[in-house]
Amino acid sequence: MTDLNTLGEIGLIDRIRNATPAPTHSETVRGIGDDAAVFDWGEDYGLLATDMLVEGIHFDLTYVPLKHLGYKAVTFGVSDIAAMNGLPLQLTVSIGLSSRFPVEAIDELYDGIRAACEAYNVDLVGGDTTSSRSGLIISVSVLGKVPKSQITYRNTAQPDDVVCVTGDLGAAYLGLQLLEREKQVFMADPNMQPGLSEERAYLIQRQLRPDARTDIVHELRDLDIRPTAMIDVSDGLASELLHLCRQSGKGAVIFDENIPIDDQAYLAADEFKISPVTAALNGGEDYELLFTVRPQVFEKLANNARITAIGYLTNNPEQIVLATKAGQQTPIRAQGWT
Amino acid sequence: MTDLNTLGEIGLIDRIRNATPAPTHSETVRGIGDDAAVFDWGEDYGLLATDMLVEGIHFDLTYVPLKHLGYKAVTFGVSDIAAMNGLPLQLTVSIGLSSRFPVEAIDELYDGIRAACEAYNVDLVGGDTTSSRSGLIISVSVLGKVPKSQITYRNTAQPDDVVCVTGDLGAAYLGLQLLEREKQVFMADPNMQPGLSEERAYLIQRQLRPDARTDIVHELRDLDIRPTAMIDVSDGLASELLHLCRQSGKGAVIFDENIPIDDQAYLAADEFKISPVTAALNGGEDYELLFTVRPQVFEKLANNARITAIGYLTNNPEQIVLATKAGQQTPIRAQGWT
Repeated sequence: MTDLNTLGEIGLIDRIRNATPAPTHSETVRGIGDDAAVFDWGEDYGLLATDMLVEGIHFDLTYVPLKHLGYKAVTFGVSDIAAMNGLPLQLTVSIGLSSRFPVEAIDELYDGIRAACEAYNVDLVGGDTTSSRSGLIISVSVLGKVPKSQITYRNTAQPDDVVCVTGDLGAAYLGLQLLEREKQVFMADPNMQPGLSEERAYLIQRQLRPDARTDIVHELRDLDIRPTAMIDVSDGLASELLHLCRQSGKGAVIFDENIPIDDQAYLAADEFKISPVTAALNGGEDYELLFTVRPQVFEKLANNARITAIGYLTNNPEQIVLATKAGQQTPIRAQGWT
Repeated sequence: MTDLNTLGEIGLIDRIRNATPAPTHSETVRGIGDDAAVFDWGEDYGLLATDMLVEGIHFDLTYVPLKHLGYKAVTFGVSDIAAMNGLPLQLTVSIGLSSRFPVEAIDELYDGIRAACEAYNVDLVGGDTTSSRSGLIISVSVLGKVPKSQITYRNTAQPDDVVCVTGDLGAAYLGLQLLEREKQVFMADPNMQPGLSEERAYLIQRQLRPDARTDIVHELRDLDIRPTAMIDVSDGLASELLHLCRQSGKGAVIFDENIPIDDQAYLAADEFKISPVTAALNGGEDYELLFTVRPQVFEKLANNARITAIGYLTNNPEQIVLATKAGQQTPIRAQGWT
């Protein structure tokens, strides 16, 4: 018998993919291995992405409001569609829950789901409800579409491409550290008032109610830019960059000082004695987009405040490195199964 | 605070549906309320169904082999597509599991998933794998399609329609009783040999590895028959008949002696001192199809060994009854939240 931990999540997905036969339907363009499956729908490609959130693994109901959790579950799925350069159409949400949840709790959860559906312009069309003996489980499937000429995969990056990232990174992870610290304080003395200051509001919001970047998909279309490759940053910049490089057979040089990090994240990282760059590389849950564009195309994005160039790709897949101002290079590694 | 049990599963789904705004995408034809959501894909309607299976609620790994469980999970989703008179195209499977599962166990589960994909001609295109602190969780989403002229909803049955059911009912429930009994024997004395005789093989197979009736969808197309309404029998005949009647605004008279029940089911019901008709009405997990056809259309099916006429519909939605040979009528009721 082989311990699951020796394989890791990526090893497990590779194992499942390698054992899966080629599709038999001509409509199936791509299966396992990107942010969403891809289907031939005539003029457009159809997209299907699915995500599962498990209590105690992905969220802690002692500090996650159910409304935010509902919103975040939709964000998970929509972000996968955005990573294919697509926009969402329809969504199903299945929940497993124990009878310890009152009806009002389910209402709250669905309030968040509906708020996200409105924000992302996606129709809630179904799901499943079932009992669960343990905690809350949420499974989201999102259908989307993308014009055939605009689809963006992970494995099509080119050497010399500019590596871009939207928004800022690491804030969601530092928000989680703040919430975990408050939980410890509260558990030690339930009469303590929470010590979360207004100044940290951005970090908390990034953790509890992240937004999928469908706005960037619209913006790229408006600018007539199709990235050469794209992936969403759900598990941290390091892990996603390695996916993109590995699947494209390319290397990358990322400049540490270019990684966009919010001022609040710098302050919190200092307080927790964490390197802010490490939070950006390995923290995860930012739901930003990591994409690559040809150097000549990047000119159109150079002055865009929502997009930052953080490095470039090379032809050497062995070289995926973080470069400092001083010229030092260290290999970028991903964390294992979490 | 309102206890979830006071609402029940159907009440909860109604509550979610009533709070869900109308779809904004013109492609969304139908959302919550049937076996699958329905989309306008041009020539065909697209279908999306999703199901969640939770350890300790839907399956007990002390007697359910993982390979059968994988097969059954796919059957759940494909059966929903068949209930819309559609055929499946693509499938995603998300699993939550703890590290107590060795890699070989996951291989077994996926062996069953792949066997089902081959049997139903559906492409496995993706999913999600995550940790779970408690048991195994499986979430399946199936995309399918149906020619627009063939789509079959739950709410379009007509008075005088013949009520038909495929295969036989109650066997899966009685198979579960047999497995539960053997588990008790085994727990009392782990040295006992299992006492499951060959004669009960059909019941065990119906419980552990049920088949979705895509064969019937093909057959109805070959015979050029479009049912007036259809639903799959996942929660027992009573519950599904009530859904179909309630959503169509019709009543029904079902003849108890017409309900198809296998000989092995009769024998096991006798042994467990359960009425075989009750097992068929409330047992569930048969994954047969319940459908209605116009009386003149039924002639084409009258000699079909795989399809049985069990009653007819009326214009009186208050009258949904089981009729005995002797002429007695008793109202059909569904069980509550399970």
